[in-house]
Amino acid sequence: AIDPARLWDSILDTARIGGTAKGGIKRLTLTELDAEVRRWFIAACEAAGCAVTIDDMGNIFARRPGKDNGLPPIAIGSHLDTQPTGGKFDGIIGVLSGLELLRTLQDAGYETTHPIEVINWTNEEGSRFAPAMLSSGVFAGKFTKDWAYAREDRDGIRFGDALRDIGFIGDEACGAHPLAAHFELHIEQGPILEAEAKTIGVVTGVQGMRWYEVTVTGVDSHAGSTPMYLRQDALVATARMIEVVQQIALEHAPNAVGTVGLIEARPNSRNVIPGETFFTVDFRDPDDSVLSAMEQKLTERLATVAASSGVAADLTCIWNSPAVHFDADCVTAVRAAAVQAGFPHRDIISGAGHDSAYVASVAPTTMIFVPCAGGISHNEIESAEPGDVAAGATVLLQAVLAMDAK
Amino acid sequence: AIDPARLWDSILDTARIGGTAKGGIKRLTLTELDAEVRRWFIAACEAAGCAVTIDDMGNIFARRPGKDNGLPPIAIGSHLDTQPTGGKFDGIIGVLSGLELLRTLQDAGYETTHPIEVINWTNEEGSRFAPAMLSSGVFAGKFTKDWAYAREDRDGIRFGDALRDIGFIGDEACGAHPLAAHFELHIEQGPILEAEAKTIGVVTGVQGMRWYEVTVTGVDSHAGSTPMYLRQDALVATARMIEVVQQIALEHAPNAVGTVGLIEARPNSRNVIPGETFFTVDFRDPDDSVLSAMEQKLTERLATVAASSGVAADLTCIWNSPAVHFDADCVTAVRAAAVQAGFPHRDIISGAGHDSAYVASVAPTTMIFVPCAGGISHNEIESAEPGDVAAGATVLLQAVLAMDAK
Ligand SMILES: NC(=O)NCCC(=O)O
Ligand SMILES: NC(=O)NCCC(=O)O
Repeated sequence: AIDPARLWDSILDTARIGGTAKGGIKRLTLTELDAEVRRWFIAACEAAGCAVTIDDMGNIFARRPGKDNGLPPIAIGSHLDTQPTGGKFDGIIGVLSGLELLRTLQDAGYETTHPIEVINWTNEEGSRFAPAMLSSGVFAGKFTKDWAYAREDRDGIRFGDALRDIGFIGDEACGAHPLAAHFELHIEQGPILEAEAKTIGVVTGVQGMRWYEVTVTGVDSHAGSTPMYLRQDALVATARMIEVVQQIALEHAPNAVGTVGLIEARPNSRNVIPGETFFTVDFRDPDDSVLSAMEQKLTERLATVAASSGVAADLTCIWNSPAVHFDADCVTAVRAAAVQAGFPHRDIISGAGHDSAYVASVAPTTMIFVPCAGGISHNEIESAEPGDVAAGATVLLQAVLAMDAK
Repeated sequence: AIDPARLWDSILDTARIGGTAKGGIKRLTLTELDAEVRRWFIAACEAAGCAVTIDDMGNIFARRPGKDNGLPPIAIGSHLDTQPTGGKFDGIIGVLSGLELLRTLQDAGYETTHPIEVINWTNEEGSRFAPAMLSSGVFAGKFTKDWAYAREDRDGIRFGDALRDIGFIGDEACGAHPLAAHFELHIEQGPILEAEAKTIGVVTGVQGMRWYEVTVTGVDSHAGSTPMYLRQDALVATARMIEVVQQIALEHAPNAVGTVGLIEARPNSRNVIPGETFFTVDFRDPDDSVLSAMEQKLTERLATVAASSGVAADLTCIWNSPAVHFDADCVTAVRAAAVQAGFPHRDIISGAGHDSAYVASVAPTTMIFVPCAGGISHNEIESAEPGDVAAGATVLLQAVLAMDAK
């Protein structure tokens, strides 16, 4: 059995790395803080008897040998990077429950048949470098390494350069690494489990998601001396486009969501009519055909708003992650573990993207959700109960052992 | 008579300091580039026989003695700072035509009765540190020096610290400096003179302007897993508020203008519903009572949008610069100079704010406008014809000599 107190201590311990005044974490991918938590993680895994390897996307693999080391490992993976105003749980409990599992096996002197591997995936959040799940995506062959290396943050720093600068370009070629299975424990990040008083979400899949970038071009001009009728105000047009995104999502209620999370105006000066804006759109729905309908509406309506607002708009889809259905055997193992432990549970589809969504295309994969307070995530006040996290780690351990015994 | 080629050369010469690829200038106030153009200006004025003094707001006064140095000087003032995407003319021709006038008087060995002073006012643009016309405002007693020093840019750097860091806190107390008159040559920054084929705008006043800051508070949350009905999206609310600003201005057509020039979203991450935004509002109208009506609408409608969007909005008026009427004698001198030189001219009210608007409350003041292409300003493509700039400088010289002779 796992040690709930030790797991909780690890969570609080790493939460100091990038910890914020409001109790959250700001630990953006490939920053010095990310490097610090990576070093902590490697040392902890080595202390638990693992050999650590790193691939050329900075993904970290900590392997505990099994009886048959010719078998591919059963993996437990998630991420230690956070949003700019992130919480202490998103991704982190997935990695640290893997570490807790390693420690539990070591303490018990338990020998698995397969090797067991705990993985820290690089840049799951996609906040600094779009898209999300970048390195599990390269691992699964969705993106090339070169494409990933060329991704730029909003300051124009390339992913490959940032990875080199923190010293985490490993020797192994990303993807050259078969897995027998992949499990991921995560907070739900939504309101369903809490509302229904369930401890465990048996995750059957991940909804589809598409990301867009929009550049709106008007004309910079003086805010005081340019009459209203002569303006080509990129920000007024953008305001109307933000309303369009909101409306499209509402038209596909109750499942679809649509968000403008990032906006920049240029020159961003109080007395200058903005001549250019850049903003992003995030659309999600469990049904890819709904996403296609939403995309078509977006294309048409942004063009209409641009024309009526006297500006030009350039819309690009930069990421399309289709809906994912998890492996039936893995899902069954998680459900059985929840039943056996007597935890209230339900099947659930993930609203958030996860590394497991990509890994699912190259290895049998599923996830385990536990509730978070108010369903709030990507927020410094993100909160989960120690008992729920421990329940999730218990289900994780039992599901892994069940797969190992198959 | 002034030397049009020498004036134009000075414009092109200083345009290299902070010059941009698109042919504009990025020379934000109190940056190292601002310091560089200040040093250029001081050297040029000293070479033209002036004594230079600096006050504790960094305003630079270059004085050419007159016959009666007990009289207060007749001043020619404007600014050398620019917007982030500024042009080569806004403010700059006001200072450099003053320099050209000094050189012309020196070459001719002409002795004025009053001393003549050319002034470079600090932070006219108000882009880095709000509000605009900050240092002419302290000069005129509208703001205290302490209040001005405490103004912060968007990185939290204080005006007083930035002024010290570029080495331009002078010995003279700002304001302890009587002026017999103040003239300012400027591009119109609007479309009227060009549309009517007038070379000279005889500026009779400046419209009223008010600046506001708005902070909208919602709740950061996950863009994928937070259902639409649970969101408190600060950016969606802000989009509606931007539309409100636009509508209020249109309701007071044709004179009123309203602009949201600066916006920031937090945490500004593609997959996070923005929990907070900050944006600015710039309202202008020649009639202060219209501005009061606009302000009341803004207050009411932002509250309505906030309530219906599930967010809180905090609106603060940070600047109120009432409409200004320039001195009748100065205006008459400018109009007479335009007539005498045979330049097509018309009376005009300034849509932009200028240092002259504040100086007008402590000294007889007016301005001279010349056309700019398409009325476009606060844009790197801002453009003015050498002949028009020379015409403006000619009118400036004649108006100054007329006031000196009174
Ligand atoms: N789990 C999680 O928050 N992932 C970030 C990617 C996304 O869903 O936006
Ligand atoms: N002339 C000019 O552009 N001044 C800046 C202040 C303003 O009008 O916004």
